[in-house]
Amino acid sequence: MITRMSSLFLRTLREDPADAEVPSHKLLVRAGYVRRVAPGGYSWLPLGLRVLRNIERVVREEMEAIGAQEIQFPALLPREPYEATGRWTEYGDSLFRLKDRKGGDYLLGPTHEEMFALTVKGEYSSYKDFPVVLYQVQTKYRDEARPRAGILRGREFLMKDSYSFDLTDEGLAESYQRHREAYIRIFDRLGLSYVIVSAMSGAMGGSASEEFLATTPTGEDTFVRSTESDYAANVEAVTTPAPPALPVEGRPEAQVHHTPDTPTIESLVAFLNGAGLGREFTAADTLKNVLVKVRAPGATEGELVAVAVPGDREVDAKRLEAAFYPSEVALLDDADFTANPFLVKGYIGPKALQDNGVRYLVDPRVVPGTAWVTGADKVDHHVLDLVCGRDFTPDGTIDVADVREGDPSPDGKGTLVAARGIEIGHIFQLGRKFADAFGLDALGADGKPIRITMGSYGIGVSRLVAVVAEQSHDEHGLVWPRSIAPADVHVVIAGKDDTVREGGARLAEQLDGAGLSVLLDDRTATPGVKFADAELIGVPTIVVVGRGLAKGVVEVKDRATGERVEVPVDEVVAHLVDLVA
Amino acid sequence: MITRMSSLFLRTLREDPADAEVPSHKLLVRAGYVRRVAPGGYSWLPLGLRVLRNIERVVREEMEAIGAQEIQFPALLPREPYEATGRWTEYGDSLFRLKDRKGGDYLLGPTHEEMFALTVKGEYSSYKDFPVVLYQVQTKYRDEARPRAGILRGREFLMKDSYSFDLTDEGLAESYQRHREAYIRIFDRLGLSYVIVSAMSGAMGGSASEEFLATTPTGEDTFVRSTESDYAANVEAVTTPAPPALPVEGRPEAQVHHTPDTPTIESLVAFLNGAGLGREFTAADTLKNVLVKVRAPGATEGELVAVAVPGDREVDAKRLEAAFYPSEVALLDDADFTANPFLVKGYIGPKALQDNGVRYLVDPRVVPGTAWVTGADKVDHHVLDLVCGRDFTPDGTIDVADVREGDPSPDGKGTLVAARGIEIGHIFQLGRKFADAFGLDALGADGKPIRITMGSYGIGVSRLVAVVAEQSHDEHGLVWPRSIAPADVHVVIAGKDDTVREGGARLAEQLDGAGLSVLLDDRTATPGVKFADAELIGVPTIVVVGRGLAKGVVEVKDRATGERVEVPVDEVVAHLVDLVA
Repeated sequence: MITRMSSLFLRTLREDPADAEVPSHKLLVRAGYVRRVAPGGYSWLPLGLRVLRNIERVVREEMEAIGAQEIQFPALLPREPYEATGRWTEYGDSLFRLKDRKGGDYLLGPTHEEMFALTVKGEYSSYKDFPVVLYQVQTKYRDEARPRAGILRGREFLMKDSYSFDLTDEGLAESYQRHREAYIRIFDRLGLSYVIVSAMSGAMGGSASEEFLATTPTGEDTFVRSTESDYAANVEAVTTPAPPALPVEGRPEAQVHHTPDTPTIESLVAFLNGAGLGREFTAADTLKNVLVKVRAPGATEGELVAVAVPGDREVDAKRLEAAFYPSEVALLDDADFTANPFLVKGYIGPKALQDNGVRYLVDPRVVPGTAWVTGADKVDHHVLDLVCGRDFTPDGTIDVADVREGDPSPDGKGTLVAARGIEIGHIFQLGRKFADAFGLDALGADGKPIRITMGSYGIGVSRLVAVVAEQSHDEHGLVWPRSIAPADVHVVIAGKDDTVREGGARLAEQLDGAGLSVLLDDRTATPGVKFADAELIGVPTIVVVGRGLAKGVVEVKDRATGERVEVPVDEVVAHLVDLVA
Repeated sequence: MITRMSSLFLRTLREDPADAEVPSHKLLVRAGYVRRVAPGGYSWLPLGLRVLRNIERVVREEMEAIGAQEIQFPALLPREPYEATGRWTEYGDSLFRLKDRKGGDYLLGPTHEEMFALTVKGEYSSYKDFPVVLYQVQTKYRDEARPRAGILRGREFLMKDSYSFDLTDEGLAESYQRHREAYIRIFDRLGLSYVIVSAMSGAMGGSASEEFLATTPTGEDTFVRSTESDYAANVEAVTTPAPPALPVEGRPEAQVHHTPDTPTIESLVAFLNGAGLGREFTAADTLKNVLVKVRAPGATEGELVAVAVPGDREVDAKRLEAAFYPSEVALLDDADFTANPFLVKGYIGPKALQDNGVRYLVDPRVVPGTAWVTGADKVDHHVLDLVCGRDFTPDGTIDVADVREGDPSPDGKGTLVAARGIEIGHIFQLGRKFADAFGLDALGADGKPIRITMGSYGIGVSRLVAVVAEQSHDEHGLVWPRSIAPADVHVVIAGKDDTVREGGARLAEQLDGAGLSVLLDDRTATPGVKFADAELIGVPTIVVVGRGLAKGVVEVKDRATGERVEVPVDEVVAHLVDLVA
C-alpha cells in the first residue's frame, strides 16, 4: 500500500497543543494522529487509526493463540444486570447513565463481566462445555473525574476485555496463567518496558490480581520495586515481612507515665527523651492507634475498628481502603469521639479499646515480645514497655502503614524504591462473585450443579498507542516500533526535478510490489519541512530520494538510531525487505 | 484457519425465538450468530462477528478504491455542534442524550456531519486541500420508537458514514457519483437484489438524494417501480407528470349550484349525477381543498396554506411532510376554522382563500384549461366548470396527492407498481448547510473564501448482515454468499470411527494449508444433527467425510443449490480451492 502525503488527511503542527503536558499527548497531536473533540474524547486521524488497528491485530493474534473466542457486546446496556451485582451504584459518578425514550435506565458499559456471565449462562449448561474463554475489542466508557493526557486517560476508549469460565479453582489458575503469558507476549511485541505488579493482597490472595504497568516517569500509578530482584508491587499490595517473635521473659514491667501535653508522636518522643529515663526513644518505638469506621456493603451501621501502626509511619489511605475492600472505611469524626467517651484523643491505648469491644488490628511489625510506648487511655498519660503477647493480644494484623523507599523488599532481596507507571493490563481472578449473582452453574457428570468461577482480563488498547509513544520518542518526534508503525517505510522525495520525483514514485511502487506499506512524501514542500515531518511521524525507516539519485544511491535512515547509509538504488528494495522482515 | 465446533462458542436452536417475525431474525438467532441483550441491542457471537467483519472489509475496500480516507470519531459527543445545526432538538426522541458528572450535555452520535465538518475546518484551509472524502466505520445510536426485526432495526448499530468536501457544485456531483458507483460495487459483491430510488424531490433537486433499497417482502419501506423501465422511487419522491394545458376558449361559464348536504366528495358526486345536469361526474372531476398550517424552523407562528388535489385522491402525509421540509406541517383543527370564518368547511373554494391571502398550491394535474367542480365558499353550494387560468390562478404546484399502482411512471414508460424494501444505503448531496453552520471555507486562489459543499453517504453495515440473510436463506437455514460467509468450507465428520475422524481432521488441515478457512464439525453429535446445523449455519460449501472415505471419496455439497458430488479424497483440496476462487 502506498499512502501519498499530497492527498493524505494530515496536517502536522509545529507547536505543542496548549492543553498537553506529557510527551505522548503533545506528539500524537502534533504529528496528526489524534484530535480532541470533547473532554476525554478524541478522534483518530488516518495515521493514528492505523497504529490503533495494528495494536488491535497484535492483541487479537495473542488472544486467539490461547484459544480465546471473539464476540462483541453493545456499549449501551440495560441497568438490571448491573443492579444485580451492585455495580450500578458502586461505580458512582464514573458510570455514564442515561434514559431511553420510555424512561428505561441504561448505562454505557465500563466493563462487561455481567454481560459475559449472562451470555455463558444462556448458551452453556454442561460441565463438558467448560472451560471457555471469550473476549471482545470494544469501546468502553468511564466518566473520569479528570480526563487527562490525551488518549492516556479518556472517557471513551478501546479495550480488549476477556473473561474465563472454569469449573474449578485450579482451572481458573490455569486460565489466569495463560492470559498472563499472552499479555507478556503482547507487550513484548509492542516493545514496551513494563513490570508486573501484585495488585492486591489480603482478602483476594496473593496472586489473584496483577497489573501490567508500563514504566514511565509521567505515569499516574506509583509502585515499588526491589533494588535487587524482580519484585514489584502496587503500594496497596506490598506485604510487610513480620520480624521474628521475641521472648517475653525478662522484659521490664509496663509502666504508666505522666507525659503532659504529648498528644502527638513528635511531642511524646521529645518529652520522653527529656525525661531522664536513661534511654533514647524514637517514633518507631511508639504505637499509634488510629480509629476507623468500617461499613460492610449493604450495611447501614459501621463497625469501630482500631488500627495500630508504629509511630514513625502513617496509615496509607489507599492501603487502608484496599485492606477493608469491599467494605467502606472512614476516619472518625468529632461526633464519634463524643459518642465513645472511652476514646481519649491523643492517648488511646489497647486496653480501653479491647475492654470496650473494639477490634484491635496491628501492623505486622507488632509481633509477640515487642515492647511499645502507647496511650494509657487517660489525658497526658502514656504507658511504656507494653509488651505484645504479654500486656495485650491483638485481634489480628493489618498491613496499612505507608511504604517507603528503603524498606526491605518482601521477597527478602534488597530494598524498595518507588517508581511510576501507566496501567496497560490487568488480570484478575474474580472467583464466583458474578456467577453467584446470576446463578451461573454447569451440570456436573454426577448430575449436580457446579458453580462456575471467572477470571477477568483487560488491556487498554487505545491507551497503548499513547503508552508506546510515551516510551518511544525523542526530541524530534515519535519513534514507532516496527510491529505497529503506521507504515514500513517513509519515502521522502527531496527535490523538485522530474528525475527525483519519478525516482521516488517508482521506488514507492517497487516497495509496494514487494509487500511493504509506504508513506510517500510527494508534497511540494521543501526538503527541510519533509525531513522534520518524517522525524515527527516516526516511521521506523526513512528513505531519502534526492541528489544522490544522480549517482545511483538513496539514503536509508533508521529513525530510532539516526544511523544513515547510502544504498544503491537497484539494491534498496531488497535491503528494505530484509530490514522489515 | 480451522474453527473446531467441539470448542466453538455456539449453540444452535431448533425453535424460532418468540419475539422474531422476519426470517433473518429467526435464523440469525437460531444459528447462533446474534443474541438479544436489550431492546434493539444485540451481541455478536463468533460466527456473526465474522460475517460482520467480512462485510466491513468489502465496504472498506470499495471506499479506499474511491480515495476515501478512514478516520474515527467517538460516539459520545458534546451538545454544542449539534445545537449549532439545530439537530440537538430536531432529532427529538430519537436522540440518546445524557449528562456527564459535571452536568455537561452529551449525545450518542446518530450520524456525524457536524464532527466531520468541524474536523475538516480544523485541518484544511486552502483550495488546494480539496476535494477530500473521509469515512468511518463506527457504532451509531438511535432511540427508535419500535426497535424490531433483530439487527434490522436496532438502537445501537454499525454504520459506514462518509462525507465529501468540495469547492464546487460540480465537484460535489462527482463525489456523489463516485460514491454511487462504490455502493453499487459493494452491494453487488454482497450478492444483494436492490433498487436505487430517488429519495426526495422538490427543494433538493431530483438526483440530490438516493436510497439503496434491498428488495424484500418484509421490508419496512414502500417504494414504487415502473412496470416497463428501471424507474424506482420512494413514494415521497414520485413526481406527477403534468398533462398538457388546454385551451380556455369556448369552455362553459363557471356556475354556482345549490348542492344540499354534500360536504364530502362522495356525497357531492352522487348529488351531481342525480341532478339531471346531462353529464356524468366522477370524483376525479372535483377539486378538494385541504388546509394546512406550515411552520418554518424557528418560527413561532404557522402560515395557513391551501393544498388542492383531485377529489379521487387523498393528500399523502409523508409526501406532504417531504414537500414542506424543513418546515413542519399540520392539518387545521376546529379552533383554526373558528378563527378563520371565511373557511366554510366542506365547501371551501379558491376564491375565498385567495381573497383572504391564503397561499393556494395545486396538484400538477391542475393545469391551465382544466375545469373543476369545487367549493363555492358557502354552505351547501359548489361551483361547476371553474377553469384553471381563467377563473383562478394557483400560487404554485405541490405534488402531495397519493401515488397509486397503475399511475403512469414519471419517465413515461409503463405504470407504477408498489414494492417493499429495506434501506441499505443512502447518498445525499447535503450542499452548504453544515458548512454554513460552522463557517467552513477554503481560501481561494484569488484570496477570497470559498464556502465548502458537502455530501453525506451512509451504509448500515450491521444491518447488512440481516439483509443478506433476509434475501439469502431457505427453509433449512442461512445461505451465505461466498464473499462474506463465516468460513469457506464446512467439513462435517459423519461417523465415529477413527478413520473417519482422522480423515476429516486431516482434510481440514490440508484445506487450511491451502489458505481456506474451515469450519470443522468434530463434535460427538449424530450425523443428522450435524447436517441440520450445517444447513442452518449456511457456509456455501459443505464437505461430508463419512462412509465414502473407505472408497476414497467425500461428498461436496453446494449449500445454495443442494447439488452433491462425490470427489476423490486426493482431489478434493484442489477442487475446493477452485470452487472458492
